[in-house]
Amino acid sequence: MTELTVRTSKREEIVDITDQIQKVVTQSGTQDGVCFVFCPHTTAAVCVNENADPSVKVDILDQLHRLIPPNLRYHHTEGNADAHIKAVLVGNSLFVPIVKGRLKLGTWQGIFFCEFDGPRTRHVWVQITPSISQ
Amino acid sequence: MTELTVRTSKREEIVDITDQIQKVVTQSGTQDGVCFVFCPHTTAAVCVNENADPSVKVDILDQLHRLIPPNLRYHHTEGNADAHIKAVLVGNSLFVPIVKGRLKLGTWQGIFFCEFDGPRTRHVWVQITPSISQ
Amino acid sequence: MTELTVRTSKREEIVDITDQIQKVVTQSGTQDGVCFVFCPHTTAAVCVNENADPSVKVDILDQLHRLIPPNLRYHHTEGNADAHIKAVLVGNSLFVPIVKGRLKLGTWQGIFFCEFDGPRTRHVWVQITPSISQ
Repeated sequence: MTELTVRTSKREEIVDITDQIQKVVTQSGTQDGVCFVFCPHTTAAVCVNENADPSVKVDILDQLHRLIPPNLRYHHTEGNADAHIKAVLVGNSLFVPIVKGRLKLGTWQGIFFCEFDGPRTRHVWVQITPSISQ
Repeated sequence: MTELTVRTSKREEIVDITDQIQKVVTQSGTQDGVCFVFCPHTTAAVCVNENADPSVKVDILDQLHRLIPPNLRYHHTEGNADAHIKAVLVGNSLFVPIVKGRLKLGTWQGIFFCEFDGPRTRHVWVQITPSISQ
Repeated sequence: MTELTVRTSKREEIVDITDQIQKVVTQSGTQDGVCFVFCPHTTAAVCVNENADPSVKVDILDQLHRLIPPNLRYHHTEGNADAHIKAVLVGNSLFVPIVKGRLKLGTWQGIFFCEFDGPRTRHVWVQITPSISQ
């Protein structure tokens, strides 16, 4: 397992981590397999979405903020209950195929770290398994 | 990795792709393993849910539409910002166990492609890994 | 594949299943790998989130209830349409890294079964694959 570091600079922020994860894949020497990405935090998440127009990231954060506002009456009183709920909705684990030594993503896709309670220094864990030739 | 084609016929549509994925599993000859399903699009998703009563699919699309309406003021101005956000909430990757050469799903489960910005010709990527005998 | 049993006691409940899954990992003897957790139900889900303050679980259920109330006019008339939609949003599959024979989770993380239409006797399926040494 490889641990990556992601530094976030705002309370809510979506950070492209595709290049960092590709480096792990390259260093592993894996040609065909599956790359697993795990977020070990409970107020952050990982997702795959558009890396072309940066306004998509703004819309994702805006709408999550609208649906799960931070100022409701929550039972968890640390001021980040909304961040926990957003993390559950977006999810803390994902995988991406590896083909010919490269992360195989769709044309417009990137891998993103979603910060919901920053700014913080965060981590992402990466694992790789071989796949069956098909 | 095997690429499947999914043709959608509406802007928002949930299409059962279980049989297409079972064919990939069968052709691989895998008896025990994990089947990984990846959606390479940023305005579509994949999920596992009920394949018995088709009205469940209608409810899922209706409620996503209510929560993330297409006509809000979005920063992304291509008219499909809602589709990106729905894709992040539903998720673009999932896996299903393979046992004795078959996808092992719950009684009422099917694997679905979720179109949020169709109609389009879409793709789904399938990979298989062996599992440890337990 | 190993099947676990989870008994839920309310309509909506989040149950910590980390220890049950660790037992499967321990019994498999796997030192380094990936542990896959699959929920074979269409009105329940699995997620990873905070296991320290139990009020986080209450907030997650409360907010899902607010966003997807059970008493809307749904097409699916079995009285659990909301549970299907919540299950799709939270997701029915996740994985956790295995390092040195242990589930590798973040400091505050646990693995949870999310019941949205209980009380019921439910199941969770667990699979393990080896990972490439990195």
